[in-house]
Amino acid sequence: MKKKRLFTPGPTSVPEEILLEMAKPIMHHRTDEFRAIVKEVSNGLKYIFQTENNVFIIGSSGTGAMETAITNVFSKGNKIAVVCGGKFGERFAEIGSVYGLEILPVEIEWGKTFKAEELEKLLQENPDIKGLCTPLCETSTGTTFDVESYGKVISKFQDVILVVDGVSSLGAIPCYMDRWGIDVLLTGSQKALMLPPGLSFISLSKKAWEKTENSDIPKYYFDLKKYKKAIEKDDFPFTIPVSLVIGLKRSVDMFREYGLENIWSLHSKRAEATRKGIEEMGLELLSEKPSDAVTAIKLPEGIDGEKLVKNLRTQYGISMAGGQDKLKGKIIRISHLGYMDEFDVLTAIIAVGICLEQMGYKCNLEDGIKEAKKILFS
Amino acid sequence: MKKKRLFTPGPTSVPEEILLEMAKPIMHHRTDEFRAIVKEVSNGLKYIFQTENNVFIIGSSGTGAMETAITNVFSKGNKIAVVCGGKFGERFAEIGSVYGLEILPVEIEWGKTFKAEELEKLLQENPDIKGLCTPLCETSTGTTFDVESYGKVISKFQDVILVVDGVSSLGAIPCYMDRWGIDVLLTGSQKALMLPPGLSFISLSKKAWEKTENSDIPKYYFDLKKYKKAIEKDDFPFTIPVSLVIGLKRSVDMFREYGLENIWSLHSKRAEATRKGIEEMGLELLSEKPSDAVTAIKLPEGIDGEKLVKNLRTQYGISMAGGQDKLKGKIIRISHLGYMDEFDVLTAIIAVGICLEQMGYKCNLEDGIKEAKKILFS
Repeated sequence: MKKKRLFTPGPTSVPEEILLEMAKPIMHHRTDEFRAIVKEVSNGLKYIFQTENNVFIIGSSGTGAMETAITNVFSKGNKIAVVCGGKFGERFAEIGSVYGLEILPVEIEWGKTFKAEELEKLLQENPDIKGLCTPLCETSTGTTFDVESYGKVISKFQDVILVVDGVSSLGAIPCYMDRWGIDVLLTGSQKALMLPPGLSFISLSKKAWEKTENSDIPKYYFDLKKYKKAIEKDDFPFTIPVSLVIGLKRSVDMFREYGLENIWSLHSKRAEATRKGIEEMGLELLSEKPSDAVTAIKLPEGIDGEKLVKNLRTQYGISMAGGQDKLKGKIIRISHLGYMDEFDVLTAIIAVGICLEQMGYKCNLEDGIKEAKKILFS
Repeated sequence: MKKKRLFTPGPTSVPEEILLEMAKPIMHHRTDEFRAIVKEVSNGLKYIFQTENNVFIIGSSGTGAMETAITNVFSKGNKIAVVCGGKFGERFAEIGSVYGLEILPVEIEWGKTFKAEELEKLLQENPDIKGLCTPLCETSTGTTFDVESYGKVISKFQDVILVVDGVSSLGAIPCYMDRWGIDVLLTGSQKALMLPPGLSFISLSKKAWEKTENSDIPKYYFDLKKYKKAIEKDDFPFTIPVSLVIGLKRSVDMFREYGLENIWSLHSKRAEATRKGIEEMGLELLSEKPSDAVTAIKLPEGIDGEKLVKNLRTQYGISMAGGQDKLKGKIIRISHLGYMDEFDVLTAIIAVGICLEQMGYKCNLEDGIKEAKKILFS
């Protein structure tokens, strides 16, 4: 009777009603019935992105959307600044290098953030910079970056494009694409949108779209011009994962029902309770600006994070994420994304505490539970 | 009480047991449990591809796998011959052009085929050709190409790679990757594999893999070196559509249970019955070498194919495909792919006949049914 619980920052749990919706017999993607769904889904995505622009749907992981961003809005030899404070910031830099961009990495310690004033200085000193690529939340460290302020800075630089990776955070924490002046915003299906992996989403501002017109980087499957032409008929250039789009319809309906800002509040409460609970237990957070999408916890001396993740999974059926690359074995990450309630949040905290105690680390678990409970049920 | 029936050459019907399998709660993709599934799926795919080489799984449509083929095994400026006898052959040429290859299009009339002797002559006259790209079945015309003979010809040319698009045909009609000397073989999930769209599959021979080592075409999401490194640990470089892989596990199990060659025979019988039934009704086939994956039927003067497709759908809930590009309105295509039985095949034939009669074309429907029935139940 052991249940399985997902607290990983993607894939996240899919609501039962979405799973059942997707289990219906498959429909053809070039029918009026499916196009009507696509139309509603497109509108729902605009709401979640907080944009008036098209949101394109691609059959790929979030990395595919990152590649789409780089290859569509930039040109060979363009110099771009990339916020490298974790694995996914670095991925932007890798993709850019592959396609012949000149990368100016903004190297920051993993878990630290990057100030808007520093960005302004960087852009002033490098007037040839064509874009800034940054995560909204760096999944590998659970750090939120101040994209709103970056937008304000970048609005003063006519030739700079703000590209934001919202893979682990869009729909979970505040993000207003148009209002904040984000030029490219992207995300994936398996995070706050509560779907299985397989779809990614990307939207471009008018300013970014103009850049695509002259981009000389080769692309085909990720060529947004093809998607733009198709979306005018509520269609796709290539066969889309039909069942995921049908699930997405239920997901965007749920976002509308609950309200985007209410959903952000829920995530905020879950994350706050987790942080408070964890700190009361005597543990430390990794990030100087923790995200409400995922909490990264530093593990005490002598605790092997890989082993902790394994123990949680094998003993209790609970999936959490360990550290990646240079943080391997040193942290554990608890996701607050998507489909979960207050009791799930408590379960996550308690499970970490119990496993740590079993591994020989004495923590103040009762205090942690008490504080978390207070926040969750206030 | 109107049922919906899919006779489109992708997406095809998904067996109920696969739909329910995929509706189970989502699991994390970096767990021993999922890796065990990936291992079995990988072996199953090798069986379906009839290869000893790795079959890589990508989160994309079939076009993504076509792009993967082009960008991994060729280099800029390489000259390749492309069999252009329909929409998907032309797509290979388009992708090649985008990535700076020199395309030698083998222009053949849509519905016609291309002889191995002509290929031999072409390769002799153009010793600088680095590859031939061809569909196994050209979906847009329902034509099978003689890949086995192409393989024999190409084996005499050390520097030429045979790239085969099996998107609409692999698993449905005979194809032995290793035995036939195919260097690159690719397909998608939503055809003979009886899954929703969202996954594509590609395998490379040793000869093709050697070419990837020196390829100078930029790629990231479709970079097979990343997939090769990951597959050694039954893993993926990027988050894979987990639920589709779980469905795929059931699909490859079914292929093993029934036997690949038996499944080919089933498709052959369905296609033969359809062709015979249609011809008895007084209609003509488009293709000079009709595929057992999909049958393309020329429509009589005065019958608008777009309208026929629409009538089938709105009146009877039946999805078939019309013509694409230059065949728009002129043909109808009935798929024989995947999950269907003898009665479904009869239903398809009868539905076409009834709709044609309603549109004012008198056909010998009874004779058609009789002949088809004979083949199906022999």
